[in-house]
Amino acid sequence: MPKKIVGFGEIMLRLTPFHLNERLVQTNALQKAYAGAESNVTVALSCLGQDTWFVTTLPDHALGDGAINSLREFGVDTRLARRAGKRIGTYYIEHGAAMRASRIIYDRENSAMALAPPEAYDWYQILQGKDYFHTTGITPALSAACATATTQAIRTAKSLGVQVSFDLNFRRSLWTQDEGRAVLLPLMEHIDVLFANTGSVADVFAIGGDLPADWQGQVEATRAAAEALYRTQPFPLIALTVREHLSASENGWAGLLYDGNRFYESRKYHFHIVDRIGGGDAFTAGVLHGLCRGWDHAKTIEFATAASALKHTIPGDLSLFSENEVLEVAEGDHSGRVKR
Amino acid sequence: MPKKIVGFGEIMLRLTPFHLNERLVQTNALQKAYAGAESNVTVALSCLGQDTWFVTTLPDHALGDGAINSLREFGVDTRLARRAGKRIGTYYIEHGAAMRASRIIYDRENSAMALAPPEAYDWYQILQGKDYFHTTGITPALSAACATATTQAIRTAKSLGVQVSFDLNFRRSLWTQDEGRAVLLPLMEHIDVLFANTGSVADVFAIGGDLPADWQGQVEATRAAAEALYRTQPFPLIALTVREHLSASENGWAGLLYDGNRFYESRKYHFHIVDRIGGGDAFTAGVLHGLCRGWDHAKTIEFATAASALKHTIPGDLSLFSENEVLEVAEGDHSGRVKR
Amino acid sequence: MPKKIVGFGEIMLRLTPFHLNERLVQTNALQKAYAGAESNVTVALSCLGQDTWFVTTLPDHALGDGAINSLREFGVDTRLARRAGKRIGTYYIEHGAAMRASRIIYDRENSAMALAPPEAYDWYQILQGKDYFHTTGITPALSAACATATTQAIRTAKSLGVQVSFDLNFRRSLWTQDEGRAVLLPLMEHIDVLFANTGSVADVFAIGGDLPADWQGQVEATRAAAEALYRTQPFPLIALTVREHLSASENGWAGLLYDGNRFYESRKYHFHIVDRIGGGDAFTAGVLHGLCRGWDHAKTIEFATAASALKHTIPGDLSLFSENEVLEVAEGDHSGRVKR
Amino acid sequence: MPKKIVGFGEIMLRLTPFHLNERLVQTNALQKAYAGAESNVTVALSCLGQDTWFVTTLPDHALGDGAINSLREFGVDTRLARRAGKRIGTYYIEHGAAMRASRIIYDRENSAMALAPPEAYDWYQILQGKDYFHTTGITPALSAACATATTQAIRTAKSLGVQVSFDLNFRRSLWTQDEGRAVLLPLMEHIDVLFANTGSVADVFAIGGDLPADWQGQVEATRAAAEALYRTQPFPLIALTVREHLSASENGWAGLLYDGNRFYESRKYHFHIVDRIGGGDAFTAGVLHGLCRGWDHAKTIEFATAASALKHTIPGDLSLFSENEVLEVAEGDHSGRVKR
Amino acid sequence: MPKKIVGFGEIMLRLTPFHLNERLVQTNALQKAYAGAESNVTVALSCLGQDTWFVTTLPDHALGDGAINSLREFGVDTRLARRAGKRIGTYYIEHGAAMRASRIIYDRENSAMALAPPEAYDWYQILQGKDYFHTTGITPALSAACATATTQAIRTAKSLGVQVSFDLNFRRSLWTQDEGRAVLLPLMEHIDVLFANTGSVADVFAIGGDLPADWQGQVEATRAAAEALYRTQPFPLIALTVREHLSASENGWAGLLYDGNRFYESRKYHFHIVDRIGGGDAFTAGVLHGLCRGWDHAKTIEFATAASALKHTIPGDLSLFSENEVLEVAEGDHSGRVKR
Amino acid sequence: MPKKIVGFGEIMLRLTPFHLNERLVQTNALQKAYAGAESNVTVALSCLGQDTWFVTTLPDHALGDGAINSLREFGVDTRLARRAGKRIGTYYIEHGAAMRASRIIYDRENSAMALAPPEAYDWYQILQGKDYFHTTGITPALSAACATATTQAIRTAKSLGVQVSFDLNFRRSLWTQDEGRAVLLPLMEHIDVLFANTGSVADVFAIGGDLPADWQGQVEATRAAAEALYRTQPFPLIALTVREHLSASENGWAGLLYDGNRFYESRKYHFHIVDRIGGGDAFTAGVLHGLCRGWDHAKTIEFATAASALKHTIPGDLSLFSENEVLEVAEGDHSGRVKR
Repeated sequence: MPKKIVGFGEIMLRLTPFHLNERLVQTNALQKAYAGAESNVTVALSCLGQDTWFVTTLPDHALGDGAINSLREFGVDTRLARRAGKRIGTYYIEHGAAMRASRIIYDRENSAMALAPPEAYDWYQILQGKDYFHTTGITPALSAACATATTQAIRTAKSLGVQVSFDLNFRRSLWTQDEGRAVLLPLMEHIDVLFANTGSVADVFAIGGDLPADWQGQVEATRAAAEALYRTQPFPLIALTVREHLSASENGWAGLLYDGNRFYESRKYHFHIVDRIGGGDAFTAGVLHGLCRGWDHAKTIEFATAASALKHTIPGDLSLFSENEVLEVAEGDHSGRVKR
Repeated sequence: MPKKIVGFGEIMLRLTPFHLNERLVQTNALQKAYAGAESNVTVALSCLGQDTWFVTTLPDHALGDGAINSLREFGVDTRLARRAGKRIGTYYIEHGAAMRASRIIYDRENSAMALAPPEAYDWYQILQGKDYFHTTGITPALSAACATATTQAIRTAKSLGVQVSFDLNFRRSLWTQDEGRAVLLPLMEHIDVLFANTGSVADVFAIGGDLPADWQGQVEATRAAAEALYRTQPFPLIALTVREHLSASENGWAGLLYDGNRFYESRKYHFHIVDRIGGGDAFTAGVLHGLCRGWDHAKTIEFATAASALKHTIPGDLSLFSENEVLEVAEGDHSGRVKR
Repeated sequence: MPKKIVGFGEIMLRLTPFHLNERLVQTNALQKAYAGAESNVTVALSCLGQDTWFVTTLPDHALGDGAINSLREFGVDTRLARRAGKRIGTYYIEHGAAMRASRIIYDRENSAMALAPPEAYDWYQILQGKDYFHTTGITPALSAACATATTQAIRTAKSLGVQVSFDLNFRRSLWTQDEGRAVLLPLMEHIDVLFANTGSVADVFAIGGDLPADWQGQVEATRAAAEALYRTQPFPLIALTVREHLSASENGWAGLLYDGNRFYESRKYHFHIVDRIGGGDAFTAGVLHGLCRGWDHAKTIEFATAASALKHTIPGDLSLFSENEVLEVAEGDHSGRVKR
Repeated sequence: MPKKIVGFGEIMLRLTPFHLNERLVQTNALQKAYAGAESNVTVALSCLGQDTWFVTTLPDHALGDGAINSLREFGVDTRLARRAGKRIGTYYIEHGAAMRASRIIYDRENSAMALAPPEAYDWYQILQGKDYFHTTGITPALSAACATATTQAIRTAKSLGVQVSFDLNFRRSLWTQDEGRAVLLPLMEHIDVLFANTGSVADVFAIGGDLPADWQGQVEATRAAAEALYRTQPFPLIALTVREHLSASENGWAGLLYDGNRFYESRKYHFHIVDRIGGGDAFTAGVLHGLCRGWDHAKTIEFATAASALKHTIPGDLSLFSENEVLEVAEGDHSGRVKR
Repeated sequence: MPKKIVGFGEIMLRLTPFHLNERLVQTNALQKAYAGAESNVTVALSCLGQDTWFVTTLPDHALGDGAINSLREFGVDTRLARRAGKRIGTYYIEHGAAMRASRIIYDRENSAMALAPPEAYDWYQILQGKDYFHTTGITPALSAACATATTQAIRTAKSLGVQVSFDLNFRRSLWTQDEGRAVLLPLMEHIDVLFANTGSVADVFAIGGDLPADWQGQVEATRAAAEALYRTQPFPLIALTVREHLSASENGWAGLLYDGNRFYESRKYHFHIVDRIGGGDAFTAGVLHGLCRGWDHAKTIEFATAASALKHTIPGDLSLFSENEVLEVAEGDHSGRVKR
Repeated sequence: MPKKIVGFGEIMLRLTPFHLNERLVQTNALQKAYAGAESNVTVALSCLGQDTWFVTTLPDHALGDGAINSLREFGVDTRLARRAGKRIGTYYIEHGAAMRASRIIYDRENSAMALAPPEAYDWYQILQGKDYFHTTGITPALSAACATATTQAIRTAKSLGVQVSFDLNFRRSLWTQDEGRAVLLPLMEHIDVLFANTGSVADVFAIGGDLPADWQGQVEATRAAAEALYRTQPFPLIALTVREHLSASENGWAGLLYDGNRFYESRKYHFHIVDRIGGGDAFTAGVLHGLCRGWDHAKTIEFATAASALKHTIPGDLSLFSENEVLEVAEGDHSGRVKR
């Protein structure tokens, strides 16, 4: 029985050089797609079999249509999305390789989403009868209007008994720590599942500091951050990722769940990266899917980390995997043997 | 001896579907280029052999770099261009065919260019020793700051003895007729070469009305508009184009020069269109090139119309033709015979 | 208020050379899309604003997923589509030009759709509460099972008061005239809107013969066929198209409606073709849209013919136009002027 | 029963902008193929069902391998081709449109073919048992060595009773009229089938002068040139083409055969051009195919002109059509109706 | 002196996403090629310098033509291939990366090849005067007709003194172990060179069981399987491969020859994979090439393993390497130094 | 304050398969760019912020225009480049992977550059007022004329106080050791900065011999070569690179500076390669940039090696990085963390 899940956030036009390793100044064609932290999670949950809706504001022209189509294509219900305003947020990714970092140029200011008035969303109507509401720290950072809308959405969800899922996703390019904390901290008491990593925990909660260089040290720092977080606010579930930045092409990767009582830690992955953008969102979708399915935390964290690892092996932000495809990897088939 | 010509305006990121006839909602890749009414003219003049500079404001990131590179690639000197601000104006073209119109989505508000303060440009420094200054009605329409900068530029040019070339290019999507007239009309007395067509003359000067459907009627209406314009303001030279909209794929096309005394009219072209965007800018460049070369008006108008016709046969806004290539067509070789 | 419309048929994998004019033996890449006569109509109706469902059978693998996604992308509800069987029908188009005809290779035998047992569809469940049911003569031609399913669907629709729309679409490559007539003729009494042209009327009803070469003769022959058809069976509405085959690149085109009383004939179009496949389906969708909107027949036939003309100007089978975009053309704007 | 036909000449690397209408300075990718006047004819004959061999000299590296592969791909036997030398002749085509002419940059000097010593070819061995030998005026123009090889080949063919087919193909970029005449005129007495047009007849035989502008005048001038040619040398068969240069995108086209007794003239075609390079070679192959099949001249000239017309509708130099595909058009099916 | 080698099997249309790492549901274009286990071996042997023929049945349309062309392109003689039937077997590969497995969708049922009657092949005519006949366990698995044809081919080869090469290639998706054994085991006594790995030996001969995880264990299990196989049937030569599945992107790889007396083992390769499909076929071709050349087994196994390793570094099924290119690697040059 | 730097050499058309890992015989499209050892350095210096000119000879057609444009695009001043002659040097790269080496086919004989007479360059005019002159051992190897021009350029530079930078770049495909030494050795006394590696030192100076296989051995051999070189000629600065050829896809890499007194050695990089062509030129540009900036040798060598490492991660010969982008890596940020 699928659960009913509502995502809320901005979906952007995503443009990347036509050939994977080109720089932006080298290419004369761009791959065109649509993505955003919250819509990525929503699409992934739809591919995993959940019933999903995405709430956003998009301009009423061909680029907005394309964003709608990209959500519908993977089964997300867009009938709650608004069409208003003039521009779609846009970002350009130049994929790194080896010691060369990926670079993103954001062009999302004054987007239809950022300028949408909070009263445009009828949260009671939207959330009634739903099981989960998911958004991230990016949405309230887009504008004061979006911060208000996010706050109203979360409060309405809470009042309707809808589970609230929230990924801290602190973006220094969008707001300062002070601005972010003023908006985010009051929301924390309503969160049922919190997604974070050591970086976002430090930015939002001022917990933790410099990360150790070694993997084991990073895992321990992540556990410590989770415990400190829990002491600040006893979240029912905290989900965290640990990323080892070996290079732009190669990462170590693991996931952790903490329920205030014990930790559930996935196996560690070490993989060659095709496209790492959206890797965290795939993890988020994996955790939420495990919760929707009622799996135990040990199974859920392996599933979520496998989903995320798989995302790193395909181009684009989207985690386009079925539950079975993820389970094969979560259960340990990493041989890459051809499936005929 | 090439002349020294300065263009001023916004150069935008131009994105079009990868395959020529696709709609935006059908494509998953976009051709990437850079263009703008004023930069198109400047690039074309450079290809024709003039010494050119382009003055603009572009953000200091990879997309701004790309715009600079696209100008330098075709020989335009960009050392007078400013790098400041955050976003590059962007537009998306969906090329029409037959009865289906081309559609453009502009996303240029709040661009680095629109937000650039007028005092950022040192016009005395920029224009000293130059022969021509060219801009269009689009530049002052971008923002009040741009309107001020345009006015200052034109006045400085005048005071330095630099010839001022101006294309009315009235864009209803950027401002109202009242707004436009308030800015543009006071500039007219400084213009040495004015580029227009019946539409822009009506928008800016309230001259002329509905166009007759037939070609000869259109030509006559264009002549009448020129004469009325001249009575309003005795421009040393008025250059006009006449376009017969047979369909998105097929147009009739001719050019006219009026010096207050007599008309010089080019032969009429009738062509299949590959990409019509930038066709008017190619005409403008052709006229300015003829002036720079000191040709008589009869030769100049044939050259400018041929340059424009050629532009319609290649993708992109840019008129990438040498003087010789244009002359071949201007002198009547339309056979399309293979040149080996 | 949108109407509720159910389409039924096979959606196939459609593969065409990467560059528009290549032959199949020349290309090493293929454009990949999904299409079928009935799904094309359903997608077009969705783009025009109707509420649509598509009923079909597709294999449960990535190519079947892709077909589902391609329907959802444009707003068609696919929750009534079945996933079963092993193969997706496939076809390859080599687009013609000038005197070179387009060629299609069908590879659709034994598809999941053709092998689906009629009892797999619960028509009562599917059609209850819907306004229109649409299918074509291709569906019953796929297999005896599909013929049975089609018959059951139409009868159920009729019994539920759902309007039945049917396009004769006689395909000689799928069955003989005798086979086709045995299945199709008994269905005719249930049809509310019949789509045909002189060729399919001759194949199914043995009405009419050789077509005159001239346009006016063709129009008259089409009118005569409609009248003869009506005498055979008093269809509430017959919609017909007339195509003048000037070459693979250029066609004349018009539409006719006949209500047993009078004819409504659209203006004649003469256009350069980008991709003519799906042109008839766009017409069908246009007529159904006019009926859904309650327009008079004169408006409907102009709308339908405009929709079809527009389809010829874009690649792919699908008519991806909004109601407004079609209305602009239907109301006479064929100038191809750039819309900014 | 297929005939055995040997072609002799240079096959070059052919590079064209990735998108059909781009200029070379606009594109950052090139379509890669291999072609040459003589190999084009040989490939076309193979596609029509004849047994073919191609004699040439190609360097022994990947680009030479590619040329060999491109011949084998379409059934030409390359076991008589030599592998020696260092470079492959190369040419770049920029396809024109409307009044913009196509432009070709040749880079074929010092190619392996041009530098091959005449004694490298054992013509007795090569031609023994064959039915036809075909080459063109381009081959002897490549170098003195190639002129010698061509002369030896033609003489050996003659002595072995192999029919000699020769296309004048005079290229002013390769040699002067004087140089060409010195080599070509002595060969004429050995030619069984001569291919020409008014231009090449004027260049090689100083026959005829300025062409009239109208179609009928051109046809008559072509007939007159054939008769004058026949008086110079009573060729068993002269095949000629007439091209009306309406623009780079649109041509009139017809073929003529003259056997010294009467003319056989094909219907006139008027077509939109995708790629006109190789159109003459397709005609040549069509005539030779008719001769191989023993068709009467009236059928042969319709077939050859249809083959040539079809070639204009596909990209590349090669005429990739089966006998049946050409016959459909030769027999008058120009409707472009979809063949399913 | 090249040997004469006949391959027999199905050649399929092979379709893969346009960009290497895309999933099928992400791409809108597919790379188009043709491949099959037996044709891959035949093409590779042709590239290595042997004289090759391929026997198969292909439909007589453009996709069948393409398959023929793809064989001829690389020098395979296709004049013994039959053209009959309606469909070409087709498969779609989604290339994996890291822990994500490659996935293949086969759509080959009811292909022209599967439906070809055994009597359609005149094996005596085909095999007379040839040196080697090669096929695999896939061919008899296609249909009962193909099983009969395979048996007849092998028996005819034997009776004519043609060496029989056979790759077990057991495909569980095509038949059961019982079905396979019933057909394959009676053929074994005729085989001169058997290609296998531990998996296929287990499937066909029920020899061996679970593989150890470590490389050395795998090599030993492979040796043990070969010895057990030899005890079952004293094959003149058994060739085996060992693959270490580190991930979809990275494999260990070695080859073994066993002549009943001793083992010849290649060095172990460890490589990053571009496309692993066809890697085994390249190995097979390498062994057969060594036999044709009369090399000793030690040289042959290094050559075959190097050929296979090289295949993994290029896209497509085909091993497009010359003997010299393989020898460089076989003799130890793995530095990847640029060859200028 | 940027320095003024003049590069001199041949810029070639560079063609590579459209998809990165294809072989030339597999592809039907080629990526088109322009590159050469000396122009690569010049472009890189321009991207790093220096003022640059490139002196060369290019034919006056579209391919020569493209080369000019490619230099201007990245800010190089081409007004000193000559337009004369007929052909542009061309090279084709097939990128290797794993144990498969990259292969380059050069087609540069008789290029406009090779045939340019030495007196065509007015070195006094060109070099007056400049700070650096850079060329490599490839330029004098192109022809006797180029050797003379190179010698004259270096002598003129010296006499004008322009610093001379020279990369030995010995190419065995262009000349023999004896030929090379006769030209190069007399130039050495004028060189201010010499670029070399153990291979080129052995070829030109007969210093050093077989390289040890291990990294440390290679570094020591490189140091020894530098010292021996310095004893031969006390170059003010010798810059050397050490490359560990792990495979075509993976290299170790470091840089060394030797001023006759002490060595400055960069950290060692170990990276996955996207395209290694131009890696040495990026290093050269990095060293020259450090000299222009007046950095100490320790900083310069880290910068140059970082620039070179970055070049290996992008397609093409060109090192398109800003000073800041290189500094990030030079200062140790190799994590590949996304920069937003």
